[in-house]
Amino acid sequence: MNRKQKAKAIEALDRFRIELPSWGFANTGTRFGKFMQDAAASTLEEKLHDAGLVNALTGACPTVAVHVLWDFDDPTDPASAKTTRRLARKHGVKIGSINPNVFQDQAYKLGSFCSPDASARQSAMDHTLDSVALGAAVGSKSISMWLADGTNYPGQDNIRRRFNDLKDAMKQLHLKMGRSWRGAKLLIEYKPFEPAFYHTDIPDWGASLLLCQHAGPQAKVLVDTGHHLPGCNIEQIVALLLNEGRLGGFHFNDRKYADDDLTLGSIDPYAVFRIFNEIAQFEFEAKKAPGSTPVDYMVDQSHNLKPKLEAMVQTVCEAQKLFVKAQIVDREALARAQAKGDITGAEVLLKSAFDTDVSPALEAWRKGQKLEKDPLAALRKSGVIKQLGRERKKARAERGEEGGSSYA
Amino acid sequence: MNRKQKAKAIEALDRFRIELPSWGFANTGTRFGKFMQDAAASTLEEKLHDAGLVNALTGACPTVAVHVLWDFDDPTDPASAKTTRRLARKHGVKIGSINPNVFQDQAYKLGSFCSPDASARQSAMDHTLDSVALGAAVGSKSISMWLADGTNYPGQDNIRRRFNDLKDAMKQLHLKMGRSWRGAKLLIEYKPFEPAFYHTDIPDWGASLLLCQHAGPQAKVLVDTGHHLPGCNIEQIVALLLNEGRLGGFHFNDRKYADDDLTLGSIDPYAVFRIFNEIAQFEFEAKKAPGSTPVDYMVDQSHNLKPKLEAMVQTVCEAQKLFVKAQIVDREALARAQAKGDITGAEVLLKSAFDTDVSPALEAWRKGQKLEKDPLAALRKSGVIKQLGRERKKARAERGEEGGSSYA
Amino acid sequence: MNRKQKAKAIEALDRFRIELPSWGFANTGTRFGKFMQDAAASTLEEKLHDAGLVNALTGACPTVAVHVLWDFDDPTDPASAKTTRRLARKHGVKIGSINPNVFQDQAYKLGSFCSPDASARQSAMDHTLDSVALGAAVGSKSISMWLADGTNYPGQDNIRRRFNDLKDAMKQLHLKMGRSWRGAKLLIEYKPFEPAFYHTDIPDWGASLLLCQHAGPQAKVLVDTGHHLPGCNIEQIVALLLNEGRLGGFHFNDRKYADDDLTLGSIDPYAVFRIFNEIAQFEFEAKKAPGSTPVDYMVDQSHNLKPKLEAMVQTVCEAQKLFVKAQIVDREALARAQAKGDITGAEVLLKSAFDTDVSPALEAWRKGQKLEKDPLAALRKSGVIKQLGRERKKARAERGEEGGSSYA
Amino acid sequence: MNRKQKAKAIEALDRFRIELPSWGFANTGTRFGKFMQDAAASTLEEKLHDAGLVNALTGACPTVAVHVLWDFDDPTDPASAKTTRRLARKHGVKIGSINPNVFQDQAYKLGSFCSPDASARQSAMDHTLDSVALGAAVGSKSISMWLADGTNYPGQDNIRRRFNDLKDAMKQLHLKMGRSWRGAKLLIEYKPFEPAFYHTDIPDWGASLLLCQHAGPQAKVLVDTGHHLPGCNIEQIVALLLNEGRLGGFHFNDRKYADDDLTLGSIDPYAVFRIFNEIAQFEFEAKKAPGSTPVDYMVDQSHNLKPKLEAMVQTVCEAQKLFVKAQIVDREALARAQAKGDITGAEVLLKSAFDTDVSPALEAWRKGQKLEKDPLAALRKSGVIKQLGRERKKARAERGEEGGSSYA
Repeated sequence: MNRKQKAKAIEALDRFRIELPSWGFANTGTRFGKFMQDAAASTLEEKLHDAGLVNALTGACPTVAVHVLWDFDDPTDPASAKTTRRLARKHGVKIGSINPNVFQDQAYKLGSFCSPDASARQSAMDHTLDSVALGAAVGSKSISMWLADGTNYPGQDNIRRRFNDLKDAMKQLHLKMGRSWRGAKLLIEYKPFEPAFYHTDIPDWGASLLLCQHAGPQAKVLVDTGHHLPGCNIEQIVALLLNEGRLGGFHFNDRKYADDDLTLGSIDPYAVFRIFNEIAQFEFEAKKAPGSTPVDYMVDQSHNLKPKLEAMVQTVCEAQKLFVKAQIVDREALARAQAKGDITGAEVLLKSAFDTDVSPALEAWRKGQKLEKDPLAALRKSGVIKQLGRERKKARAERGEEGGSSYA
Repeated sequence: MNRKQKAKAIEALDRFRIELPSWGFANTGTRFGKFMQDAAASTLEEKLHDAGLVNALTGACPTVAVHVLWDFDDPTDPASAKTTRRLARKHGVKIGSINPNVFQDQAYKLGSFCSPDASARQSAMDHTLDSVALGAAVGSKSISMWLADGTNYPGQDNIRRRFNDLKDAMKQLHLKMGRSWRGAKLLIEYKPFEPAFYHTDIPDWGASLLLCQHAGPQAKVLVDTGHHLPGCNIEQIVALLLNEGRLGGFHFNDRKYADDDLTLGSIDPYAVFRIFNEIAQFEFEAKKAPGSTPVDYMVDQSHNLKPKLEAMVQTVCEAQKLFVKAQIVDREALARAQAKGDITGAEVLLKSAFDTDVSPALEAWRKGQKLEKDPLAALRKSGVIKQLGRERKKARAERGEEGGSSYA
Repeated sequence: MNRKQKAKAIEALDRFRIELPSWGFANTGTRFGKFMQDAAASTLEEKLHDAGLVNALTGACPTVAVHVLWDFDDPTDPASAKTTRRLARKHGVKIGSINPNVFQDQAYKLGSFCSPDASARQSAMDHTLDSVALGAAVGSKSISMWLADGTNYPGQDNIRRRFNDLKDAMKQLHLKMGRSWRGAKLLIEYKPFEPAFYHTDIPDWGASLLLCQHAGPQAKVLVDTGHHLPGCNIEQIVALLLNEGRLGGFHFNDRKYADDDLTLGSIDPYAVFRIFNEIAQFEFEAKKAPGSTPVDYMVDQSHNLKPKLEAMVQTVCEAQKLFVKAQIVDREALARAQAKGDITGAEVLLKSAFDTDVSPALEAWRKGQKLEKDPLAALRKSGVIKQLGRERKKARAERGEEGGSSYA
Repeated sequence: MNRKQKAKAIEALDRFRIELPSWGFANTGTRFGKFMQDAAASTLEEKLHDAGLVNALTGACPTVAVHVLWDFDDPTDPASAKTTRRLARKHGVKIGSINPNVFQDQAYKLGSFCSPDASARQSAMDHTLDSVALGAAVGSKSISMWLADGTNYPGQDNIRRRFNDLKDAMKQLHLKMGRSWRGAKLLIEYKPFEPAFYHTDIPDWGASLLLCQHAGPQAKVLVDTGHHLPGCNIEQIVALLLNEGRLGGFHFNDRKYADDDLTLGSIDPYAVFRIFNEIAQFEFEAKKAPGSTPVDYMVDQSHNLKPKLEAMVQTVCEAQKLFVKAQIVDREALARAQAKGDITGAEVLLKSAFDTDVSPALEAWRKGQKLEKDPLAALRKSGVIKQLGRERKKARAERGEEGGSSYA
C-alpha cells in the first residue's frame, strides 16, 4: 500500500469501533450440548473484564452490548443500571446496545409481540420498556430488538395478525423511546428461520424496513450477517438500506450454512470486504469522512469450541483488516471504469484492494495507539486464558457451580 | 367435501381466472439448447389460437399476456394494437398484461433502466412508453415490468446509482400511465439471480415494494413463484403484500432449484395451496367474496420438453384444484384453534382441506360451464396436438423456417 | 380408490411399521431454549409408556429406538438390558434400533471416532461396543450411528486423517458385530452441517456409502430426511441406494430450511410420497410384496412446541397415508408412458395417485386391526395428554425436578 | 513471504498448468440471450489463436480442451484430428481433454446414455467412441463426460433404469478406451441441476464415484466448482476423492447462486484457496513434489459480458495466485496445532497464508519465464482485443454471419 492509502487507512481506523457482546464471553453451545471452557465468563463482572481485556488489546471496542435478563441485578429496576455501569467503567468500557430478552421465558412459547396471547404480548412490552429505562439510565445509545417470534407449522397462526400486532408494538415503543431516551436508536433485526421453522415474523430486510417505516425515524434495520437465505447478496441490502437512511448496524459473524455464528471472515472474507466497500462507497459519494457513517458494528457470535477471548480478538482484528482494505479502493478510477462499462477494470480495482497487504497500516495505527503489533499473538503468548481458566474454575467450584456438559 | 364446501367452491371458481402467456406456446429452451416441438406456435396467430384452445377447454383463461417485441407488428406504432386485438378476439380471448422487453437488445448489455449508459436507459423508457400506448390501445389492464438488470461481478457497477435511476424511472412511468392509461396497474417483478449472477437490481419483494412506494398507488408487486432463494416462505410474502395493499399478481410456475419454470404444483403442490390459503384468509377477514381479490394470476413457464398445450391445460387445472382446496378451509375453526395456541388442531384444519378430494366441485363447475370433466384428458384424446404438429411443420417448411436444434 | 387399489393398500399396510424414538417423548428444544410440556416424559418408563400408547392407537409402531446413554440404567453393563427390555414389554413394545451417544460428553469436543485425540476415539469405540452388547442383549436388530463429528473452521483438523480413522473404526465395528450380534445392521447416517459448521465428517450419502463399502455387507446408509442441502433430490438418493443394496432405513421428519425436525409431511408431503414411490417401484420391479423391503422407517423429530404424543400419532398416520398413496400408482401404465417418453402422461399417473383420497383403505385397515378410525382425533378427545400432564407434573415436583425454562 | 516460501512457490508454479476451453473464446450467453462481442472467436482457428495468446501471456496453458462437435471438421472421421492438431501446433498449444457432445442433438431430448430410447443411447455411445478415436489421434490424455441427462418431472422416467444403463455404458466405454487409447482418463462430471430440473442422472460426487468404481481404474471424478448445491463443502469432496484415488480434475469457475460460470475467485477466493490447500496437504503427506498431483485443472466458464480474453487471462492469474498461497502454508506447524486441538492456531496458519502477498513469487516466476509482470494489464494495454474485434467483425461480415442478438 502506498503512503496516501496508509494515511487514509489510519484516519479511518481512528473512527472504526466494534461493540462486543457480553454473552460472547460465556459458555454457549448448540442444541446438542455445550462444551465448557474453564476460562468462560460466568458473572457480569467476568464478562466485562473480558470485554475490557479485548478493548485493551485492540483499542477498538469501547462498548459492550448487554442482555437485560442476564446483565442487570434486577431488570425491572432502573437502579440496577448503576452496578452494571460501574462495573463497565471499572474495566474500561461503556455499556452499548441494550438487548431485551423476549424469547426465553415460558410465556413466549407462541411468540412475544406476535403471540396470540395478549398477556404474552404485554409481558414483552413491559420487559422492553424496562429495558428502555435501563438503557437510558446506563447511558446506552440503542436498543436491539431480536425476536424469536414465528411458527413451526403452516396454519399454526395468522401471519398478518401477528405482523400487525408487531407493527403496533414497534410504533408504541418508538413513541415511548422518543419521550424518555432521546436520540436512541431502535434497531430491528431480521432472521429467516431458527428457532421458528415454518415462518419467522421478521424474516428479511423488507419486513424489518416496513416495521421501521411504520415506527418512525429513529427505527433502523439491524443486519446480522448470518441471518440470510443461501446466496443472498448482503452487501446489496446494505447499499439499499444506506440509500433509504435505514441502516442501523450489524451483528457480525460468519457462516457457511445457516446461522452458524462463526468468527467474522473465517469462511468468506471477500464478502465481508464487500460490505465495508458499500459503506465506504456511500461515504465517498456523500463526501463524508471515511469511517464516519453512524453504523453500529457489533459482534454476535457463539463459540462452542474456539476459546472465546481468542475468537473476539481475532474477530476485531479481522474486521479492522477488511475495513481498511475497503478504504483503499481507488473510487475515482472505479467510477470511471463503471461509467464506461469496463467490467474487468472495475472488478480488478476491488480485487486489488482486497489483495493488498494492509498490515503496514494496521501496525502503524496500533503503534500510534500504543498497542501490540499483533493483538491475537499477544493474547496467546500472555497465558492469560490459562490463568483465567484456573481462577474461574476455582471460583465456580467455590460457588458450587458445574462446568460440565449440559444437553439441551 | 360437503355440500356447503362444494357450493362455496363453485362460487369461487366462477371468479377464478388465470392468464396465459403468448410466449408459453412457442419453442423455448435452456442455455444448452431448445428441443423443438412440431406443434409449437411460431406466429402470433398460432399463439392466440392455442391460448383460445386452452380457454375453450378450461373456461378459466379469458386473457393472454403478450410480449411487446414479439406480439405486435410494430411495437412503436399504437396502430399495431388493432391486429393483435383482432386476432385475440378471433380466438375468443382478450389481451391481458403487456410485457415490454428491455433485455434482448444488444443495447441492454449493461442493463436497461439501470444501465450506466444514459442512452440505454432512454431506450428502455421509450420502449416502455410505447408499450403503455399499446396497452391502452389494446384494452389491457396492466403492464408487467421484469428487468434482467444486474451485474455479474462485484464492483462492476454502482448498486445505489442503479437503484436510484430505477426509482426515478418507475416514478416517471407511473405518472405517465396515470395520464394515458387510467386504472392500469404497474406490476414490478423481482428475481434474485439469472441472467445476472452477482446482483440483480430488484432482487426481492423488499426492493420491489420500495420501488412501488416511490412510484405511486397503482404500482404493485408481481410475485413469480420461481424467483426466490432456497427456503423462502413465499406465502408469507403474499400475506405481507396483501397487508400493505401491494400484491399485484403472480407469475405461476414451480421449481425445485432455481427459476426452473416447471408446471405449477408439479414439485410442491402444498406450497401453492398455502399461497391460495393466504389470499382466501385475507378475503375471509375482509368479508370479501371468495376469489374476488384483484390479484392477477398469470402463468409464466418454459417448457422445453413437455408439450406446451398439455402443460398449459394441466397448469390451469392444477391451479383450480389447489385454489378450491384453499376455499374449503374451516376459517372459523382455524381462528379458534390459533387463538388458543392449538398448534396441531390448527395445522390439521389446513392439511385436511389440502387432502380433500375436490374433484366433485371441479366437475360440477365444469358441467355448469359445459366443459369436459377432465380438460387434460380431453385434450390428449382429441389428437389436436398431433394435427397442429403436422400443419405447423408444413407451414414452417413453406416459410423456409427451421425446426431443428439451436444451441444458445 | 377402486377395490383393487384398496386391497393392495391394506395388504401393504399390514407390513408397514414405523419405529418411534424414546427421546421423542421427552422435552427437547432449540439452542435458544426449551419450552416445557407438562406431559413430556422424563423417565424411561414414561417414554416407553408413551410409545406403547402411540402403538396402541396406530397399530403400526411395535418397536422403540433407544438412546444408550439415557435409556439404560448403566450403559456399560449388559445386564441393564433386562430392565429396558422388561419395561418395553410391559408397555407392549420391543426395543428397536440402538443409538450410541458419542457427542454429549466433554471428551468429544473435537469429535468422537474422528477426534485428533486417540483417547476420545477409544472412548467412542468403547461406548459403541457397549452399545452393541446392549443391542444384542435387548434383542434389537440394528445400531444407528449418527456422529456429530466435524470442524468449525477451515484448517481446524485434517479432513482425510479424520475420515480414515472413521473408516477403520467402522470396519472394526462391523467385524465385532458380526461375531456377537449376527444379522444386525450397522446403520451409518449422514448430515451436511450442525452441530459442526465448517465440515461434517459424514456430510452426504456418498461419504456414508464409502464407509459402508469399506465396513462390510451389513453396513447400510441411514437417510434422515432433514439432513440434506437445499434442493437435494432425496428420492433419487433412495433409488440409488436401493440399487446398490445399501439403503438401511430412514429417520423421518420434515423441514423447510435446515434440520428443522418438524412432523413428517407437514411442509412437503409430495416429497415424502416420492420417497415411498421409489421403494414401491423397486418392489414392483423386483416382484416383491408391497411393503416388504427391509427398510427401517424410524421417526426422528424434535417437538419444542407441538404436544409430543399428538406429533407422534400425526406422524405415523401421515406416513401411512403417503405410503398407501405410493402403493396405488399404476406401475404398468407408468412403465409404458416412460418408455414412450410421454412426460405428461407419466407424471399424471404419479400425481393422480397422490391426489387420491386413500382414507377408505386406511379406515378399513384400522377397522380390521380394531383401531379407532382417526387415531389423532381419538387421542385428542381422550384427554390423556392433560391427565399425563397432571400426573407427571406432580411426579416431577415430588422428585424435585424442575419443569421450567432452560436456556442453552 | 520469505525466501524459502518464494522458492517453493516458484518450484510449484513450474508444474502448475491450466487447460483452456476452446468454447470459452466464442460468444455464449444465458437462455435470455447472448450479448455479442466483436472479438469473440467464431472459427476453430480463432479459438486456438486466442488460447495460444493466453498461453503466451501466462505461460501456464499449454493445452486446449475441445468440443468434438464444434472443433473437428468431421467428428465421425478420425482423419479430422489432423487439422485440429495442426492448427493447435500453429498457435503454440496442444489438444487437451476431449468433450463429446451428447446433449445438443434433438435425439437427446429425453437423455443420451440414459434415454428411454435405445437408439438415442446408441447414438451417444457411437459419438463417444468417435470422440475416443479422435482423442487418441490428436494426442489427448482424457475424455470429459458431462451429460445433460435427467428429467423435469417426478415420474417422467425410471431413475434406476437410467442409472443402470449409464453404468453399463461407462463400463463399456472404459473397456474400449483401454484397448485403443491406453493411459487416457475417463473423466465423469456431476451436476445437481440444469438443464434438467427435477433430477439429474449424475447429481453429485457420490453418483460419479459409483460410476467410476463400476467402470474401472482409469475412470475419475471431474469436479466442476459451479456444480454443487448451496453450502456444499467442495474442498471436502476434493479431499475424499484424493483419498480414494479418484480425483480426475476440475472445471474451474466461480458462482454465487447456481452454475453461474463466473471467473474463478471472483466471488469467493478463499474457497478456491481451500481447494488448492487440500491438494497441497495431500502432496505434503504423500511426500510428493508440490504441484505434482496428476489433477487436470481446466477452465469452464461462460462469459456473456466480460471480454473473453480478459476473463481467461484473469482466471489463469487468479488460479496461480491462489495456488501459490496454498503452497506456503506451514504444514508442520499446522499438523502440530491440529494434533493438540489448537483451533485458532491452526486456522490462523491457513488464513495467514491466504493473506500473504504472493506477488513477489509470481513476478519472479514470470520473469524467469520471460513473461510480462502483469499479464492482464499487458493484454489490456496491448490493444489486441480491439484489433481482433475489427478483424473478426469484418471477417464475419464477409462470411455473411451475423453478430447480432439471439434470443434463446
